[in-house]
Amino acid sequence: MSSVGDDAETDTEATTRAGVVGASGFTGGELCRLLTAHPEFDLVQATSREYENKTVGSVHPNLRGVDLRFSDPTDLESVDTLFTATPHGVSMEHVDEFFEAADTVVDLSADFRLDTEEQYDEWYDGHVAPEYLEKAEYALPELNRENLTGAELIASGGCNATATMLGLKPLVDGGLIDSNDRVVVDVKVGSSEGGAGGGAASSHAERSGVVRPYAPTGHRHEAEIEQFLGLSTAFTVHAVDMVRGASATGHVFPGERVTKGDLWSAYRDAYEDEPFVRLVAGGGGVYRYPEPKAVAGTNYAEVGFELDPANGRIVVFSAIDNMMKGSAGQAVHAANVALGFEETAGLEFGGLHPVGAP
Amino acid sequence: MSSVGDDAETDTEATTRAGVVGASGFTGGELCRLLTAHPEFDLVQATSREYENKTVGSVHPNLRGVDLRFSDPTDLESVDTLFTATPHGVSMEHVDEFFEAADTVVDLSADFRLDTEEQYDEWYDGHVAPEYLEKAEYALPELNRENLTGAELIASGGCNATATMLGLKPLVDGGLIDSNDRVVVDVKVGSSEGGAGGGAASSHAERSGVVRPYAPTGHRHEAEIEQFLGLSTAFTVHAVDMVRGASATGHVFPGERVTKGDLWSAYRDAYEDEPFVRLVAGGGGVYRYPEPKAVAGTNYAEVGFELDPANGRIVVFSAIDNMMKGSAGQAVHAANVALGFEETAGLEFGGLHPVGAP
Amino acid sequence: MSSVGDDAETDTEATTRAGVVGASGFTGGELCRLLTAHPEFDLVQATSREYENKTVGSVHPNLRGVDLRFSDPTDLESVDTLFTATPHGVSMEHVDEFFEAADTVVDLSADFRLDTEEQYDEWYDGHVAPEYLEKAEYALPELNRENLTGAELIASGGCNATATMLGLKPLVDGGLIDSNDRVVVDVKVGSSEGGAGGGAASSHAERSGVVRPYAPTGHRHEAEIEQFLGLSTAFTVHAVDMVRGASATGHVFPGERVTKGDLWSAYRDAYEDEPFVRLVAGGGGVYRYPEPKAVAGTNYAEVGFELDPANGRIVVFSAIDNMMKGSAGQAVHAANVALGFEETAGLEFGGLHPVGAP
Amino acid sequence: MSSVGDDAETDTEATTRAGVVGASGFTGGELCRLLTAHPEFDLVQATSREYENKTVGSVHPNLRGVDLRFSDPTDLESVDTLFTATPHGVSMEHVDEFFEAADTVVDLSADFRLDTEEQYDEWYDGHVAPEYLEKAEYALPELNRENLTGAELIASGGCNATATMLGLKPLVDGGLIDSNDRVVVDVKVGSSEGGAGGGAASSHAERSGVVRPYAPTGHRHEAEIEQFLGLSTAFTVHAVDMVRGASATGHVFPGERVTKGDLWSAYRDAYEDEPFVRLVAGGGGVYRYPEPKAVAGTNYAEVGFELDPANGRIVVFSAIDNMMKGSAGQAVHAANVALGFEETAGLEFGGLHPVGAP
Repeated sequence: MSSVGDDAETDTEATTRAGVVGASGFTGGELCRLLTAHPEFDLVQATSREYENKTVGSVHPNLRGVDLRFSDPTDLESVDTLFTATPHGVSMEHVDEFFEAADTVVDLSADFRLDTEEQYDEWYDGHVAPEYLEKAEYALPELNRENLTGAELIASGGCNATATMLGLKPLVDGGLIDSNDRVVVDVKVGSSEGGAGGGAASSHAERSGVVRPYAPTGHRHEAEIEQFLGLSTAFTVHAVDMVRGASATGHVFPGERVTKGDLWSAYRDAYEDEPFVRLVAGGGGVYRYPEPKAVAGTNYAEVGFELDPANGRIVVFSAIDNMMKGSAGQAVHAANVALGFEETAGLEFGGLHPVGAP
Repeated sequence: MSSVGDDAETDTEATTRAGVVGASGFTGGELCRLLTAHPEFDLVQATSREYENKTVGSVHPNLRGVDLRFSDPTDLESVDTLFTATPHGVSMEHVDEFFEAADTVVDLSADFRLDTEEQYDEWYDGHVAPEYLEKAEYALPELNRENLTGAELIASGGCNATATMLGLKPLVDGGLIDSNDRVVVDVKVGSSEGGAGGGAASSHAERSGVVRPYAPTGHRHEAEIEQFLGLSTAFTVHAVDMVRGASATGHVFPGERVTKGDLWSAYRDAYEDEPFVRLVAGGGGVYRYPEPKAVAGTNYAEVGFELDPANGRIVVFSAIDNMMKGSAGQAVHAANVALGFEETAGLEFGGLHPVGAP
Repeated sequence: MSSVGDDAETDTEATTRAGVVGASGFTGGELCRLLTAHPEFDLVQATSREYENKTVGSVHPNLRGVDLRFSDPTDLESVDTLFTATPHGVSMEHVDEFFEAADTVVDLSADFRLDTEEQYDEWYDGHVAPEYLEKAEYALPELNRENLTGAELIASGGCNATATMLGLKPLVDGGLIDSNDRVVVDVKVGSSEGGAGGGAASSHAERSGVVRPYAPTGHRHEAEIEQFLGLSTAFTVHAVDMVRGASATGHVFPGERVTKGDLWSAYRDAYEDEPFVRLVAGGGGVYRYPEPKAVAGTNYAEVGFELDPANGRIVVFSAIDNMMKGSAGQAVHAANVALGFEETAGLEFGGLHPVGAP
Repeated sequence: MSSVGDDAETDTEATTRAGVVGASGFTGGELCRLLTAHPEFDLVQATSREYENKTVGSVHPNLRGVDLRFSDPTDLESVDTLFTATPHGVSMEHVDEFFEAADTVVDLSADFRLDTEEQYDEWYDGHVAPEYLEKAEYALPELNRENLTGAELIASGGCNATATMLGLKPLVDGGLIDSNDRVVVDVKVGSSEGGAGGGAASSHAERSGVVRPYAPTGHRHEAEIEQFLGLSTAFTVHAVDMVRGASATGHVFPGERVTKGDLWSAYRDAYEDEPFVRLVAGGGGVYRYPEPKAVAGTNYAEVGFELDPANGRIVVFSAIDNMMKGSAGQAVHAANVALGFEETAGLEFGGLHPVGAP
């Protein structure tokens, strides 16, 4: 099979063969977009049962110039790296097949995010391939870079968990909070988080303009946050009127009062060398705090904070594109690390201004 | 002067003369809308310095059929009730003039919301008519109905405070929380909250699609909440992409665990007789929790809650139209109570479905 | 069965029994909203197969306070007036049953809008009750008021046709254009026009922000326009990002040049006595032309025009709420005329300002 | 001065020095975005009087990682190519200064788009540097590629004219229409077209959700269309609820009937070798016609058509990002051609899916 995307970017030197399973979904489409323009990857297959033989551009209009058709997911090409963007529960059923087709598997579902079968069973339903849980590495390089090099099974994180953890991690690492402290996380997300499916609640007429509490308590992403940060969060998610984006506001009550200087130190230490994290904390202008639309389409996260003198509260803001830093971008970033590519390869797009409600 | 709005509603029996100061602003326009269709009030004057002699419909297109022109605010008609929708700080300078023109003054600014000069000075700048603070009654009937009858100076509450207090009050009254308990309030509001002014940050290109933390800490509406509920809240406001609406999510950690039954009892006790509060707590369908767009244009508040078994947190949701229940509607409601009218007079509109991002 | 909506409006004198078939859909919900607050109608039944026994408020959150549950459409109550808001093709199958249950039937589908079976067959598929076509009266009072009094079968018009005809009719009646003149109509509509169904194209993620040509040619509403105005229009519809609203721009090339004075005469003659048409043609301010959001939720139409000196073109603008003036409001207006009620009864709501994308 | 954007893209070999005048505006920001990631250009200066010494990222949040500060426009660096994104009328006053600083000037205003002083005076106010009009080349390569090579003064086209001309040109070139044929153009645009200024009409509360006819007749972009295509268009522009995007629908009545085959031939002939034009005409899926949100952020234009059998009308659709293909992207594309770079250099971004209302 010949490589695709020749008309979009000259990736003639791309030699790492890649495939995408579940390519007609939203995050599958993002993977196709990133991989066809990636300097190292050569996208050779994109599967979709529903749209078999149709061009990827017939579903994803931004890929109209890409010369690739969806193929049957039961007939996987042999590739170096396989990205799987299937609904939760599907990848664990097919993970053996995935590894027959590829050396490296990067999964975007929740199937391999947690460390143990016990954890999985607590938050999801029974795992059918628990032996892979230990083998899997969490994709977020800001949390897990050291373990990603050479990883064979990579689990891209949950979008809300990603936004939350990027916001809170510097406080934990900096010793400013610990597991005894009260942490409330109030998340606002766009409609793409629900995937390409649909249904009455997702229709434009019903979904437009909402501030809809859709996961008031018990959100499964709490499990990832606890696993990585050791924090039990009081976590609530609201749907708001945008398509892309997740904005997490952490209301954190440290055991001991902290200063603005403590916060700057902690966040600078955590992120000064991170290529995809922008610190945005006050200053002038229109965009004084992290803003999801400022990172729409990108792999960047914006992180910022304020201190509430009235009660010692640290207010932490983080903003990502849920489909990029919160899913497909994170997956490609992790693959770049795992395979020894330039970390930012294929992820250079920096976003638009002005932009509406992407 | 003849009465107006004859073509819209037959209010031929309306005999209480009303005026609106600051009628070209957003909440001033709402007052004109409500009063021209009100069965008791006869709107005889609407002032605007900037638009003097223009029709109210030239600024407020929904009032195009109303036969009334803006007039000079320095030449107030004698009325029974004067509604003042001026920027903060203006009403306290002119309150004596207002009472020369009217028996009853209903002010929509922050000038008379707090009880004492000390409180005012803590959150705003020096008060120039502190002698009126004690005289003023807070407008929200759900909090203060018993004091409104016959009140001469009524202070309509802050929109974010209104949403928050309607959500939390049943917990306080029901004895489920007290001032020692941790209460985080995360508010999402529409662009009309900023008023008719404008500026780069309010332009459509910059303001569309935001999840913008515009008051991370120190919001002045905390003062009202503390005054009425005795609660010190950790309060943060985000601007989201809607024009009308305020949605407040309270994350409340009671000293002792409560049950779902405790919550139902508390909220039913508080609101079962309230004509403008709808309890919305779970159930099926698309709209399971309070939703600002479901009350857009109305004087209704929706209030609901969930219980987080993981940590005992009570999650409280409340949704209002910031310009109605959060301002002009609340003002008319309070005036109805003060003057002995039917409480719901002129406030019957129940909202639209479906509706986008009103 | 007792009447409903007592808590919303005091319609204790309402004595005309009404029912709504297809009440869980968008226009069915509008009918319920209008009829529960109508001074003459007493809504006694609202049918929905899918939501039988659920409250109407469980589907339409603006009706949460209404004490009425959906019932089985095969068990119709005896009423005076039955409003039927079913998909195209359903009413003609059940029209005999409808008349067994009611004296007057007001149908919101396309089934009875055209005069003859031939016309119907040209634009739709075979009619199963063609004997009713002649009996049916088109609902739009601005076009057909003289025939509505006492009508037993009323056909509410298509929303795009309604907007278009209200814009063009004065030109025809005023003799400024005739069937030989070129008329292009470019319509922009909201997502509620597609009904409560859904599907991938209607999902929020795909439908947000579009300027989507969804009926480039051959739109069925052309048939109504030709029937009533004798004009063959070059007609194209675009979906844009709003939920409610239809805006029709007519680009009209009269055989002989007309003046601005001709236009003002024609439009004033046509609409000066119409209670639900506002002429909006230039002037100052932000809203210089008809604007759908200015009439959202109302039965008003805004109509305006400009003259293009470069080529003699008349540019006609009209804006309505597709679910109100374009459907349910028009139906109630027609019923008011048919039954001899005050024309504006139950339709007084004048809209909101500011308002987002309703 | 050192080059900027090193952290975004490795443009270490970029050797053509570029500057942007008017860099704090919307299209100026787009130029900065494109040039910092461009493989040939090295952006050495971005001017803004208002924001002098502030970072470009303080105004354009997507450029937060770019190490460049605004400087005074009266102190221009010596560069190879100067891009000027100033309000209409400014460039013609300073064009001599521009050429003192640069060999090539690419202007984004309307100052040099028209060929003669007579044309300019007809549509704008008196030109102060008419001697440059003949020298200037129109930027749109699809219209004017052959004259761009080596051009020293390039005039980027109007966004609405660009969209319109890309839609209609194949009909003219293919001999399917001529200047005697009736052509109506109905354009829908986003709020970024108004620039970064603001004002009440542009505020989020007023501008959201509109279908606002803001240029019903006499739009200045008609001049460009007539100059290049020889067509006099009946042209009307509507503002709709998006930030980026222009969608032009042409309603064209050819003197003789054409077939779908004629259209396919004409459009394929025109665009089969164009790197930035996608033909989108029917087919299945959600996106069957040109859609502005599908090209948001990109330099692509989508063009499509339908044939109306009822009247022989050709309906032409074209969609662009007004700030990219309609302004800054077109400018960079033209500069690429003028300077002999790869045409697509720096313009590879292909857009996002799904995306809201960018």
